[in-house]
Amino acid sequence: MMANAVFAGRARVDAVSLANRGLQYGDGLFETMRVDRGGVPLWPRHLARLRDGARRLGIAMPESGFLDAQVAAFAHGVEGGVLKLVLTRGDGGRGYAPPVDAVPVWSLSLHPLPAPMPRALRLHDCTTRLAIQPALAGLKHCNRLEQVLARAEVERAGCDEGLVRDMDGAPVCATAANLLLHVDGRWTTPRLDRCGVAGVLRGWLLEAGLVQEAPVARNALEAAEALALCNAVRGILPVASLEARAFAPHPAMDDLQERLAMAFPMYANAGCGA
Amino acid sequence: MMANAVFAGRARVDAVSLANRGLQYGDGLFETMRVDRGGVPLWPRHLARLRDGARRLGIAMPESGFLDAQVAAFAHGVEGGVLKLVLTRGDGGRGYAPPVDAVPVWSLSLHPLPAPMPRALRLHDCTTRLAIQPALAGLKHCNRLEQVLARAEVERAGCDEGLVRDMDGAPVCATAANLLLHVDGRWTTPRLDRCGVAGVLRGWLLEAGLVQEAPVARNALEAAEALALCNAVRGILPVASLEARAFAPHPAMDDLQERLAMAFPMYANAGCGA
Repeated sequence: MMANAVFAGRARVDAVSLANRGLQYGDGLFETMRVDRGGVPLWPRHLARLRDGARRLGIAMPESGFLDAQVAAFAHGVEGGVLKLVLTRGDGGRGYAPPVDAVPVWSLSLHPLPAPMPRALRLHDCTTRLAIQPALAGLKHCNRLEQVLARAEVERAGCDEGLVRDMDGAPVCATAANLLLHVDGRWTTPRLDRCGVAGVLRGWLLEAGLVQEAPVARNALEAAEALALCNAVRGILPVASLEARAFAPHPAMDDLQERLAMAFPMYANAGCGA
Repeated sequence: MMANAVFAGRARVDAVSLANRGLQYGDGLFETMRVDRGGVPLWPRHLARLRDGARRLGIAMPESGFLDAQVAAFAHGVEGGVLKLVLTRGDGGRGYAPPVDAVPVWSLSLHPLPAPMPRALRLHDCTTRLAIQPALAGLKHCNRLEQVLARAEVERAGCDEGLVRDMDGAPVCATAANLLLHVDGRWTTPRLDRCGVAGVLRGWLLEAGLVQEAPVARNALEAAEALALCNAVRGILPVASLEARAFAPHPAMDDLQERLAMAFPMYANAGCGA
């Protein structure tokens, strides 16, 4: 960690309290953002997702101008990095009832860019499934034990990332990225109304018309000519294999990466920052 | 909070770090224990559940004798109270992969006994459902947003507690207690292999032969002559109503409460401590 700060509302505080509901219950949300040349190019999208999550969970947002200013201050002068924001409901007593008028406790931490990924990823087909929970689907909330278990599988398998399916076996995402499938001449991505995190870069790709949402059946990967992962830290990452199935390089992959790099040069070189 | 302490392994530390995985991902477990006359009567059962959860999630346990000694020290001299233990995987970098050899960070906090509940509870029928996730079912882990949302519903409804159903509509538990149904002359409790927390007091009632596990269908409550909730803080709490359905006092309720109070006198008076 290169720098960090914790705030209660607008006040800088020394540390997170033991009574913090993020710690007690995962009662919070987070954003993981790419810092580039002193700014956070996708900040408006991260902020919009955070606001949406806060509204759905009934968590108070920090005052908007103050939040913008702190994010800008952390990114200032940083050539490349990752900025993580965690927003918790704040402190509470014992018990699940959300305290009325809790002051949100939130943190910013600046991290170096991660090590480059391979040019194309080997995916493990995770046995950990995502539970179906529409009330939390799409949110980047702090209840992430499913991802922890799935990622532990990936480590044991010696792979780069993992394909994660829902409880019905339908492909949804990777442990820390969204999933793109090239089928019938176009890029599609699974709907996320039952589980999964609605990634910020996925949102940009959808709005740019480069990818379309579609229901993805259990066996949809069999028909896919190419697979990619995407997230806001690394951009678009081609998939080389899923267990025994290999994917050959595909021209649609280069096209998608080039279009993204045109809009966001930080994602050139598969976003490795290398 | 009457007292608290945070430990990293055996070392007392000042505070929980921002890098703590409990805070970042809810990557932890907890126990909420009744303190009575300087001890924790159900400690062996709490410890067994904690160990089981730690094994399933791959979280290191604090050294056993040290943990026992700290729990005993917190309970020493306390006539009545609630002791909460939170065990997190420890600190990590960015990313879901569980760090190898992480030192577990855990805390103890002592709280006063909660305010007495009414003699019989009014239950709200929560619209928040529990997702079906066998990999986490039964554990008292720190991913508790479903309980937070369900409890917020209870508050809005002005009720005492809430009936929580699984995604298929089958009754499972309350927001912070297990569910007991008196049907066909015996007490039963829903199985918890798909969702829900395997309560420590529920475990005792099962082993004592006072309650039996059974599959509970969507409409099972219609046939129930009595409902009760149970947890390790309050004991057995009779249910007066579920939405419009009222439950008359039932002799099996008094019998169950008396048997429990015989084994654990702290649960006399519906465990209110009053």
